Amino acid sequence: MMLRLLGSSLRYRTGNSLGRCVASVPQARSKSTLADIEASKVQLDLISNRKPRPDPATLSFGKVFTDHMLVIPWKASTGWGTPKIEPYGSFPIEPSASVFHYAACLFEGLKAYRHDNGQISLFRPDMNMKRMNISAQRVALPTFNGDELLELIKQLVRLDKDWIPNRPGYSLYIRPTLIASQPAIGIAPASEALMFVICSPAGPYYPDGFKPVALYGTTEYTRAAPGGIGSFKVGANYAPALVAQKEAAKHGYVQNLWLHGPEHYVTEVGTMNAFAVFRRPKGDIELATPALDGIILPGITRDSVLGIARDHVSGKAKLAGLPDDLVVSERPITMLEVKEAAKAGNLLEFFGTGTAAVISPVDKIGYLGDDIAIPTGPDGMGPISRPIWQQLTGIHNGAIPHPWSVIISE
Amino acid sequence: MMLRLLGSSLRYRTGNSLGRCVASVPQARSKSTLADIEASKVQLDLISNRKPRPDPATLSFGKVFTDHMLVIPWKASTGWGTPKIEPYGSFPIEPSASVFHYAACLFEGLKAYRHDNGQISLFRPDMNMKRMNISAQRVALPTFNGDELLELIKQLVRLDKDWIPNRPGYSLYIRPTLIASQPAIGIAPASEALMFVICSPAGPYYPDGFKPVALYGTTEYTRAAPGGIGSFKVGANYAPALVAQKEAAKHGYVQNLWLHGPEHYVTEVGTMNAFAVFRRPKGDIELATPALDGIILPGITRDSVLGIARDHVSGKAKLAGLPDDLVVSERPITMLEVKEAAKAGNLLEFFGTGTAAVISPVDKIGYLGDDIAIPTGPDGMGPISRPIWQQLTGIHNGAIPHPWSVIISE
Repeated sequence: MMLRLLGSSLRYRTGNSLGRCVASVPQARSKSTLADIEASKVQLDLISNRKPRPDPATLSFGKVFTDHMLVIPWKASTGWGTPKIEPYGSFPIEPSASVFHYAACLFEGLKAYRHDNGQISLFRPDMNMKRMNISAQRVALPTFNGDELLELIKQLVRLDKDWIPNRPGYSLYIRPTLIASQPAIGIAPASEALMFVICSPAGPYYPDGFKPVALYGTTEYTRAAPGGIGSFKVGANYAPALVAQKEAAKHGYVQNLWLHGPEHYVTEVGTMNAFAVFRRPKGDIELATPALDGIILPGITRDSVLGIARDHVSGKAKLAGLPDDLVVSERPITMLEVKEAAKAGNLLEFFGTGTAAVISPVDKIGYLGDDIAIPTGPDGMGPISRPIWQQLTGIHNGAIPHPWSVIISE
Repeated sequence: MMLRLLGSSLRYRTGNSLGRCVASVPQARSKSTLADIEASKVQLDLISNRKPRPDPATLSFGKVFTDHMLVIPWKASTGWGTPKIEPYGSFPIEPSASVFHYAACLFEGLKAYRHDNGQISLFRPDMNMKRMNISAQRVALPTFNGDELLELIKQLVRLDKDWIPNRPGYSLYIRPTLIASQPAIGIAPASEALMFVICSPAGPYYPDGFKPVALYGTTEYTRAAPGGIGSFKVGANYAPALVAQKEAAKHGYVQNLWLHGPEHYVTEVGTMNAFAVFRRPKGDIELATPALDGIILPGITRDSVLGIARDHVSGKAKLAGLPDDLVVSERPITMLEVKEAAKAGNLLEFFGTGTAAVISPVDKIGYLGDDIAIPTGPDGMGPISRPIWQQLTGIHNGAIPHPWSVIISE
């Protein structure tokens, strides 16, 4: 048995939408003598000449990496090896390594933010650790103790925290990755694997204010199908999706909107989750997103948008700007519904959510040859997403203290 | 535009089932100044101390590699670089390389055979070159001149031909691979790529005679969906499929049978194409396989089995042992049909086809809690697959001269 069970010390908040996906993940540790990740065993090999920091003004996403990276090897026979924080750089790998042939790879994406008071925080990193373990099980890579990996990520970020540009809207993008590395081309579960975490300084997604995007409704290609991998953050979802992006660009749109099945269900916006805001017949307003039915990625920003809206509705945490009678739904949304609501003036907003953009407003959807126009305010946002975005970014930058913001450096 | 068009010198046989997939591949060269692969520019860096050959008796698939490998770099700005044949071994790659994050990878598999007269042959290698280019377009990797790559593969195999064990049923498995290598974690088409070809000596799939396998009908997971990547030989189809193999093993079966949709259409057997043989009401016999409708991999062994059977039916090349009134079909096959045919005694065979096993007979299919028994002869094979397998392996080992066998070394 190659797959290892989740460590019992891996504990997560419940009651959120990611929690629903975890039914198949065993919660108890198996009687195993294989080593798990242990943060206390970390070996440090620190860089002697720190690299020059890039100019924030010309920073392009994901091309510059910080001084250090975290690397942890795994073998089926012995478990997780010694974690090492070492200079960022190439490593040698055999051309027969499984990852090159069979896409045995997965990743996470999260950000470290610098607060005005100098503190550094991560946003809900426990959610990334949990999702990463769920992804690992799906593609036969090893699971691990998420608390211990998170401890090591914190240590890495603390070491390289001065890479976070000291400007509003900037952050450090953190990329944990897990690959099958055994030099063997038989198709089999990972027998050797490599976990690494690299970090890249990131600028604001919209440096000059929100710029709504035009989407192309993709009916030629499928992102995911029931019984497939659409709800897992594994590499195999991404390269095959590039053709749809290229097709959208060919037709003059910025991004694609994945539509599913003959009903053309709205599923995702490029690599983001999709939200629509409808005015309902009674006059109340509904914030709707597709349910986590197996083909939708359980996005952490998605979950946070839903959480903020639901806390407002329940009265747990009222948010100024949101209507008192807001309705929050996870349900199927068809393009027919979107089209008819837009025609009747009842489609108030359409937006994507993700770690990179947080909220990405949409002003047009090309669908079967027609363009559906979607209203946006003078600032590019809509009436529901605006206060939610302000709340989320306030939590990110420390202006709004919140348990989702995990302070890792004073 | 990142994707390059196929070179005009890339010519393939038509009239086979792979030919049908090529409609979207431009046949004319674009006005491009980017370099294509040029075999004549190859640089040789040959090993000084050749490695010891493995003992054929204990050879395990895909773990030992020959002395040399072929490596060709590609950049969007300049095209294909200088091909190098160099000692097999690790290469350095950055942890940010796209392939580790987004599964931007694809591969091919073909074999070199040693004939009794000492000649070395490849089996229909033009089909691999063609399919590899089609795969590259699908996952935004660069295309290339397949004739030139094939020339380089021949040169590599000639150099390492003494790695083909001189025993019946042994061969050299050749693995061309293409990965996106740019050190950047933005999700984008390949801007840098690496083609490599590695070789591994392979033993016979059934060293002790045919051993029919028991399949588990997979309804929990999906291999492919319309609009997805099921018909392309890309890495992203493989790691996500391992869970179905594990599930089959858990239930006591050797391999899984992928069933599609509520109708439970037969699609593939693990990583092989699926064939069934039915006795029809009139008494004639039908060799049937799912059509290439977008979720089926266009296997080269699949195409060869169909080609041999059709040449027999048309009278172009009669094959002793096959009935004169054989019907050859590419059509949907449901599990209901398989089950009822088996019950009525009209399911004569069920088998998988692929480069590794050539033909893999099945003697049982576990389906929704019941086992469907499938007849096999005393040698493990059935009446239709036996003569076809003899023909195919005869072409492989040179006993039957055939244009599919490409002699590369006298």
